[in-house]
Amino acid sequence: MAEEKNEGLVLLDFWVSPFGQRCRIALAEKGIPYDYSEQELLGAKSDLLLRSNPIHKKIPVLLHDGRPVCESLVILNYLDEAFPNQGSSGKLLLPADPYARAQARFWAAYSDKVYELGTRLWKLKGEARAQARAELLQVLANLDSELGGKPFFGGEEFGFVDVAVAPFVPWLPSYERYGEFSVEAAVPRLAAWARRCEGRESVAGSLHPPGKVDEFITMLKKHYGIGSSRGADPRTTDPSSIGSADRCCCGWVRLRRVAAMRAAVLVLSSPVGGSTVACGCLMRATWLQIKLLLHCLVVGVTNCSYGLVVRL
Amino acid sequence: MAEEKNEGLVLLDFWVSPFGQRCRIALAEKGIPYDYSEQELLGAKSDLLLRSNPIHKKIPVLLHDGRPVCESLVILNYLDEAFPNQGSSGKLLLPADPYARAQARFWAAYSDKVYELGTRLWKLKGEARAQARAELLQVLANLDSELGGKPFFGGEEFGFVDVAVAPFVPWLPSYERYGEFSVEAAVPRLAAWARRCEGRESVAGSLHPPGKVDEFITMLKKHYGIGSSRGADPRTTDPSSIGSADRCCCGWVRLRRVAAMRAAVLVLSSPVGGSTVACGCLMRATWLQIKLLLHCLVVGVTNCSYGLVVRL
Repeated sequence: MAEEKNEGLVLLDFWVSPFGQRCRIALAEKGIPYDYSEQELLGAKSDLLLRSNPIHKKIPVLLHDGRPVCESLVILNYLDEAFPNQGSSGKLLLPADPYARAQARFWAAYSDKVYELGTRLWKLKGEARAQARAELLQVLANLDSELGGKPFFGGEEFGFVDVAVAPFVPWLPSYERYGEFSVEAAVPRLAAWARRCEGRESVAGSLHPPGKVDEFITMLKKHYGIGSSRGADPRTTDPSSIGSADRCCCGWVRLRRVAAMRAAVLVLSSPVGGSTVACGCLMRATWLQIKLLLHCLVVGVTNCSYGLVVRL
Repeated sequence: MAEEKNEGLVLLDFWVSPFGQRCRIALAEKGIPYDYSEQELLGAKSDLLLRSNPIHKKIPVLLHDGRPVCESLVILNYLDEAFPNQGSSGKLLLPADPYARAQARFWAAYSDKVYELGTRLWKLKGEARAQARAELLQVLANLDSELGGKPFFGGEEFGFVDVAVAPFVPWLPSYERYGEFSVEAAVPRLAAWARRCEGRESVAGSLHPPGKVDEFITMLKKHYGIGSSRGADPRTTDPSSIGSADRCCCGWVRLRRVAAMRAAVLVLSSPVGGSTVACGCLMRATWLQIKLLLHCLVVGVTNCSYGLVVRL
């Protein structure tokens, strides 16, 4: 079993992960053999993964003779440095020139935003989605501009940035659909680059078709309770459907209705904070339940015995 | 003027920035001469900064013969690779062994969380602050554990991770105060390491005393309208102070009161999203104004002519 091997390379990965795919493409480009260990990400994580990456508890992890290297771009740097003349190609992903290496590291790290914003695109609705769409288009435009007239980010050669960005290619059709834009129209040079990448053996052998990625997104949406399971736009819920007997002193609904929302937890972003924890439970809440929660906040309830948590 | 120089090294920086200080410490460790160019961050950014880092528009930027390198850890890698045998010391920040280099890159990137969580600690209140405190203590514990019994993260030598983490040292007393914890008690090995760093010339010459950092945080809090300028806990605002004439059909306050909040913009986190934009205007809103905004959401107003924006 790969899990028990303490020699050679083992990649802990998840089939559709673009971050894991960066490592697979790099290993293929360099022609370095390795064992692949598919990990469970939506269920219980394996002891091997938790032991190998106790800090982030995430794939990809490259085990080299049993020693873990974590984080996709750290792994890419490592492969260049640990195997400079090995593998069938002896190829280095980073260019030789220090300034070009710095630029490559900058753009590879920057490209993480494609996935981050793409995820917001399919997870969010309304204005938040519009904002993610605008930001994603800006990121794609910046990448398109950096690519310029070159065949690859690495110039004539497929290199470090190409390896970092290529795994996002099969996600683009889904992003186009959720964001209602055309990659071809918005960033034609990047679109042509994507086609060049798809024709490359290391890429084609590591990625899955856009249809599979789209099915995965649909599965994730169901997993998180987003989208069709919520039916029509929940904002259309008719407030008059709340019986008058349930209305409280200030004209909205009685607090005891909170009991109906025991599974709904609202986490408001702090007015001064950055990121906030999005709560799985809230994803299954209806718009009416969200309004009830907001009502509780308005009348000053910030905690109750039903597990309602409102943070501001 | 440094801004006009196209030869040698120019560091675009901001005096208290720990990310800029990483570069200053690295340059001092290596004994490489450079020109320092202080940048305005809270006001209008210079053309030079915007031109040099058009993507992030942030310091630090290292100009080498006029060519910009952005992002602190990219700059640290660059200094090692562009000046491997130069400077008075000829010292390399990264270790020679590829596995040790990968570990150093992992931990240096991870240490960014100290600043991110520390900022949440002084910006937030209540449960959000408690959460930031718990996460920061975990990050410090992980760094303490990685340090172990070694004098430096780099072992016997002050190296890449030490350069990355040392600039956070003068921020720790403020974090201790806002988080009500003791670094010495929680992470004694890291505390001893911090003292060792403070005694080092490259660090002492690049950092400012904790008192100056604390003054800077206090200034930032004022700039963002957080803390003492808001007086007592705004949640204690008495709702009965709203005149009955201002109450609307559903028992709360008339929508025309929204006019009073033209400067207050509420951005709610998406129930399914990750990070959200925190809005400067809201920081200056009173708790009453926030409740008015929430009320508008409850009664279905998501946009009005006064610039009220509610996103969900």
